[in-house]
Amino acid sequence: MRILKVGIVQQSCGNDIQANNQKLEKNIRECASRGAQLVVLQELHNSVYFCQTEDAALCNLAEPIPGPSTERFGALAKELGIVLVLSLFERRTPGIYHNTAVVIEKDGSIAGKYRKMHIPDDPCFYEKFYFTPGDLGFKPIKTSVGMLGVLVCWDQWYPEAARLMSLAGAEILIYPTAIGGVGTDSKDEQKVQRQAWQLVQRGHSVANGLPVITVNRVGHEDDPSGATIGLDFWGTSFATGHQGEILAELPCDSEANTVVEIDIDRTEYVRRGWPFLRDRRIDAYHGLLERYLDED
Amino acid sequence: MRILKVGIVQQSCGNDIQANNQKLEKNIRECASRGAQLVVLQELHNSVYFCQTEDAALCNLAEPIPGPSTERFGALAKELGIVLVLSLFERRTPGIYHNTAVVIEKDGSIAGKYRKMHIPDDPCFYEKFYFTPGDLGFKPIKTSVGMLGVLVCWDQWYPEAARLMSLAGAEILIYPTAIGGVGTDSKDEQKVQRQAWQLVQRGHSVANGLPVITVNRVGHEDDPSGATIGLDFWGTSFATGHQGEILAELPCDSEANTVVEIDIDRTEYVRRGWPFLRDRRIDAYHGLLERYLDED
Repeated sequence: MRILKVGIVQQSCGNDIQANNQKLEKNIRECASRGAQLVVLQELHNSVYFCQTEDAALCNLAEPIPGPSTERFGALAKELGIVLVLSLFERRTPGIYHNTAVVIEKDGSIAGKYRKMHIPDDPCFYEKFYFTPGDLGFKPIKTSVGMLGVLVCWDQWYPEAARLMSLAGAEILIYPTAIGGVGTDSKDEQKVQRQAWQLVQRGHSVANGLPVITVNRVGHEDDPSGATIGLDFWGTSFATGHQGEILAELPCDSEANTVVEIDIDRTEYVRRGWPFLRDRRIDAYHGLLERYLDED
Repeated sequence: MRILKVGIVQQSCGNDIQANNQKLEKNIRECASRGAQLVVLQELHNSVYFCQTEDAALCNLAEPIPGPSTERFGALAKELGIVLVLSLFERRTPGIYHNTAVVIEKDGSIAGKYRKMHIPDDPCFYEKFYFTPGDLGFKPIKTSVGMLGVLVCWDQWYPEAARLMSLAGAEILIYPTAIGGVGTDSKDEQKVQRQAWQLVQRGHSVANGLPVITVNRVGHEDDPSGATIGLDFWGTSFATGHQGEILAELPCDSEANTVVEIDIDRTEYVRRGWPFLRDRRIDAYHGLLERYLDED
């Protein structure tokens, strides 16, 4: 058994970035004081989810990596002796911005980064305007607590991404997330959606014999354009074991943090019982590299 | 709306093949009388699940396609005017046997077949001994009730298979199945396994915006070798909608059949809301064709 204690910080965010950061720090400290060795934050945790509208001036929120956030959170990770998963708006060069997860090692250094590969674009989620698609591929990040398969939000709907992380040696799948309901969808429909969101990720856990940690933001955020009534983020951050079973789930309507224990070594036991990776038909998967397989 | 009424026949099987077939016929007729346009049978429905032991003589159970079963069930499908999904032990030539699903059109003809691509081999499930891996790829079968993405049992753990069917135009995913508990696993562990089995398939539904029909056998079957206490099949056949939501679920411990209504056209609505297929990173999926992505 190799138990990993994972802290999950589910927050609401406001326009005051300073205040968001102070709240993050308080919650990270709380997780660490409860023994967390790894703490995962939600997607774009420093600010509101600014993609509800397309406004070039909002690119001012972006920052270089390394930069102010990796410095501030690096110092905190070092002080607490924890590994920390950040989710930042990266300014790479004028005109190239990414939605980037950064893993901070417990000595405060940058262990690695992942640039969001699958970029959504839907009403209230205009990410294709802001984020250049990632170019680092699906590579887990090696840390002192294990190989972290860090992906970001929209990636969570893609079995391909989970599988590639798993084939590259990930020991745990991690999804910083910002998903919520658009006012125009009925409450019933949103419930089906929220359940589907969890189901597909629990499916990745089963298919790969890996635990999943998903950290989502919570609370209402206005649409600055006034075009819609804004977004209600779903919270419901969760952790699974190696067969999709829920180990922890946070509320859908309030801030919370928790620390969950995961036996990283269980993967081998589970994969011996269900050796899916042994039987993949790699000779017959070429179609996965196609957009669509038209008849003829 | 294009409603498809799908009949699900969940049975136990004994050593008397004639009796198994009579029961199948009775249940198929019952589904048809309740309006089913498509009826799906469980994996290797004509016989017991003979793969609990490795015995070359059991290859005598195999039959050609077309052959006795496609003839008998073809006549029944034609009489009832239904499309029928069979799961047969195919004898292709001496030394090549397949685990093959056959779709019968409502005029009694063979619409197409699918040869199980992923072949398991675990204690009590010695399929690699009997079944040559399929060589027809992941191609949906065109029928009068739609494009059927027919896969078989172990395939259901592979997101790759579901995705390929979906990219090739499947309108519904169908899994004839024979899965159950091995006596050596505790009841608690079997419950986690059964849930995982359902989760991964509900995940395919979500990831592809497709309904899933899974038909499993039920009941106890002895291990003819006497090496184990045999298998208890889980039943729990189920149908999902397009976002993994359960539309119907049969009992885990008894025979049953049901007819479920599925709105085939809902796929387009769901995929417009969640356009996962639009954003696949086909430029970055090459690793899916590898066995494992070793560091180096």
